[in-house]
Amino acid sequence: MSFAMVAYLLGQICKIEATLMILPLGVSFIYGERLQLAFLIPIAVLLAIGIPLTIKKPQNTHFYAKDAFAVVALSWFVMSFFGAAPFVISGAIPNCIDAFFETASGFTTTGATILTVIEGLPMGILFWRSLTHWIGGMGVLVFMLAIMPERETQSIFLMKAESTGPQVGKIVSKLRVTARILYGIYIGLTLIEFIFLLCGGMPVFDSIVNSFSTAGTGGFSIKNASIAGYNSAYAEYVIAVFMILFGINFNIFYLILVGQVREALGSEELRVYLGVIAVSTAILTVNLYKIYGTFEKTFRISFFQVSSIITTTGFATADIGTFPTLSKFVLLVLILFGACAGSTGGGIKIARVIILIKGARAEIRRLISPNAVVSSKFEGKPLDSALVRSTGAYLPAYVGLFAISALAVSIFDDFGFEANFTGVMTCLGNVGPGLGKLSGGVFADYSGVSKLILSFDMIAGRLELFPVLMLFSPKEYRR
Amino acid sequence: MSFAMVAYLLGQICKIEATLMILPLGVSFIYGERLQLAFLIPIAVLLAIGIPLTIKKPQNTHFYAKDAFAVVALSWFVMSFFGAAPFVISGAIPNCIDAFFETASGFTTTGATILTVIEGLPMGILFWRSLTHWIGGMGVLVFMLAIMPERETQSIFLMKAESTGPQVGKIVSKLRVTARILYGIYIGLTLIEFIFLLCGGMPVFDSIVNSFSTAGTGGFSIKNASIAGYNSAYAEYVIAVFMILFGINFNIFYLILVGQVREALGSEELRVYLGVIAVSTAILTVNLYKIYGTFEKTFRISFFQVSSIITTTGFATADIGTFPTLSKFVLLVLILFGACAGSTGGGIKIARVIILIKGARAEIRRLISPNAVVSSKFEGKPLDSALVRSTGAYLPAYVGLFAISALAVSIFDDFGFEANFTGVMTCLGNVGPGLGKLSGGVFADYSGVSKLILSFDMIAGRLELFPVLMLFSPKEYRR
Repeated sequence: MSFAMVAYLLGQICKIEATLMILPLGVSFIYGERLQLAFLIPIAVLLAIGIPLTIKKPQNTHFYAKDAFAVVALSWFVMSFFGAAPFVISGAIPNCIDAFFETASGFTTTGATILTVIEGLPMGILFWRSLTHWIGGMGVLVFMLAIMPERETQSIFLMKAESTGPQVGKIVSKLRVTARILYGIYIGLTLIEFIFLLCGGMPVFDSIVNSFSTAGTGGFSIKNASIAGYNSAYAEYVIAVFMILFGINFNIFYLILVGQVREALGSEELRVYLGVIAVSTAILTVNLYKIYGTFEKTFRISFFQVSSIITTTGFATADIGTFPTLSKFVLLVLILFGACAGSTGGGIKIARVIILIKGARAEIRRLISPNAVVSSKFEGKPLDSALVRSTGAYLPAYVGLFAISALAVSIFDDFGFEANFTGVMTCLGNVGPGLGKLSGGVFADYSGVSKLILSFDMIAGRLELFPVLMLFSPKEYRR
Repeated sequence: MSFAMVAYLLGQICKIEATLMILPLGVSFIYGERLQLAFLIPIAVLLAIGIPLTIKKPQNTHFYAKDAFAVVALSWFVMSFFGAAPFVISGAIPNCIDAFFETASGFTTTGATILTVIEGLPMGILFWRSLTHWIGGMGVLVFMLAIMPERETQSIFLMKAESTGPQVGKIVSKLRVTARILYGIYIGLTLIEFIFLLCGGMPVFDSIVNSFSTAGTGGFSIKNASIAGYNSAYAEYVIAVFMILFGINFNIFYLILVGQVREALGSEELRVYLGVIAVSTAILTVNLYKIYGTFEKTFRISFFQVSSIITTTGFATADIGTFPTLSKFVLLVLILFGACAGSTGGGIKIARVIILIKGARAEIRRLISPNAVVSSKFEGKPLDSALVRSTGAYLPAYVGLFAISALAVSIFDDFGFEANFTGVMTCLGNVGPGLGKLSGGVFADYSGVSKLILSFDMIAGRLELFPVLMLFSPKEYRR
């Protein structure tokens, strides 16, 4: 393991986080809030750590895949740790564990919160809280790749470890250009949503932070009642549509930008993703009609909740805890599925679900005809056996981490089967709200130990398990 | 597809079921019950179907793997269909769907019931109900192989389709001898349990039917309060130990019988199985101590419930619905795990769980060191990549069928998240009791459609999904 490079890269992350904190500092300055120290102290500490670590680039800049995975996993814990400081220092969240949970929830774009009352918090704090979603959505390592020149062949490991989906590749031959294209699309889409919300009469500040939350598929809201607090059908439709857009593989947008529209719309994953949204919305609309009475309202709530859950955003326009069991199960399946690979969304990802289903089908074909040569295709190309194998290992790892976490959380907190079960699931899938007492996504009553376990799950879920689980294989690292 | 051979083998199954029904007929005769028609009518019908189909063996007795899978899947539906007749004709379960559910639950050794009151039913009916467990435990096709001479090379497919676990092989070189050894061990262990129960003062009839239920890891009881109804710590310990024994791979018993004790006890699966039982019992004992007060009682209830659930039997000595969330989650994990491969138990099987965990670990090793040659071992032998692949396809199929069933059941019945979720899980895992309103394993209130879906799940779970899911691939069959 190349400790020098790991330290150097972690130092860069500290410097980037310090720089990003200047934004909420500016916001609180604009609103005349006395919050300077809440941001200046962590900025100073981050720079005090980051500058010495990066003052000299290691002579041997070579690093291995395992180093990249370690850097990514560690930097997410480091970012969440220091990112919690403004909450603690400002007094918005005095408890350190609570603040860590909130920040991990922010960066991982989960959107689970420990705050029972959100309205009334300082604007600078609210801005930072939503900004963590936006930073975490595309990933801070990808951001680093976009702004700094690194050696191509190795940096791809950093991108692979932080980006979502079973296959991560470069859009264009240069990695730095790829990272810039991704961030360009990300910034562009966020801006368009901001303008749409603004045009609907939403205040500037609200339009900005809600766009951040949507873009990262996060779910933090600055209203106690989440998006329902705006009482605006227009805003609900706009946000629902943008949630779906941010849940799409960003490669699709690139293909559209360069004019390859037919290839973009032919994506198997995109079609399944939109199909699942359509079918789920239809089921919820029928199932919830008796509750809401009118078709438009029932459809709007169904469409919004389905978009919010499958993209793992977690915004709410209704209390899903009051839904019938059928609707709850549909949403539970969507939590498991998650959004598309290469998007800012969490969960197992539609691409993996497709590969898993095709793998199971191929096995059945092999059993029926043991001597036949069975091959499957995905996105028009034959499925690589190594990809099928690694995807096949993903589900057991997911279920295993889920089971261990659910058991561990239940040692410390007994809020019933439904809440504990969906609480772990929603954190691992980076969604936010659960069922039972967690239908609002508020984890305030859970114990400190449970919050640490759930924070770990959020980061593990965001980084798609393996980079984080690797930290528990020190023997392998030493080789 | 060889329709002639499929029909011939199904005919044999009908004749075997008719023969087996003579036993409960005899029991009801002994007890002077006027139940003759309840058994004579289905016996006549089964013979009327079975004899013509088997009067002439097809000239071409060759059949393929897919035919074997079809025969096994179809024969389990056929057996459950005709096996339901005595319940309907006797009036014990007047509703046909209810009777089908009860019989499928019996043959698949699930033990879920639609009966709210069991005591007072005719002895012949109670005997048949428990006998279905015993028949289904080892499998009726394996029974057929034990008594009839078939062509070796093809009949192994029948055994593979009906036996449990990812790898099914012959104990000795001759398949018929293997089947006889398996049934010999099965009968022997059942007899020993019967004697143990009898020695503890349990009535003869009760000792027989409870031994049947334990042997098949079924869970049907003839007391309303299940095993708790005997108020006997001795009986509880005896049954708990025998449940664990019947959850062990029968190859282990064969190894012990032929003196290879060290090899038998060195089995990786056996060690993990016993380890999981020990750890789970310890967790439950600590977690439940505050409820039951004394150590012996708490330990006994914990040990019994853990044994009952991991072996997928479903006998009860306590209401698991009243357990704390932690204990519920432990039991939920055990439902998913199930017993050992090659046992009469259900679930995913410990062997598959081990292979899945090793597969995920190997993937992590591959990510850490992309150029290293990674290989895993199971039971001392290198893991075959085809086995890892097919096991990797098992979990998605399991989760997929679970999700579809849970959604479908929730369309027709809304008994809350906990009941619907665990209801499907317990049927698919062939366990019996669930949580919420299903903590007693009584599905009486579910609608007819849901009962059919759950019956399907029970059979799919018992045959380990693929043989049953294949029935939905008619295109593949035609090739």
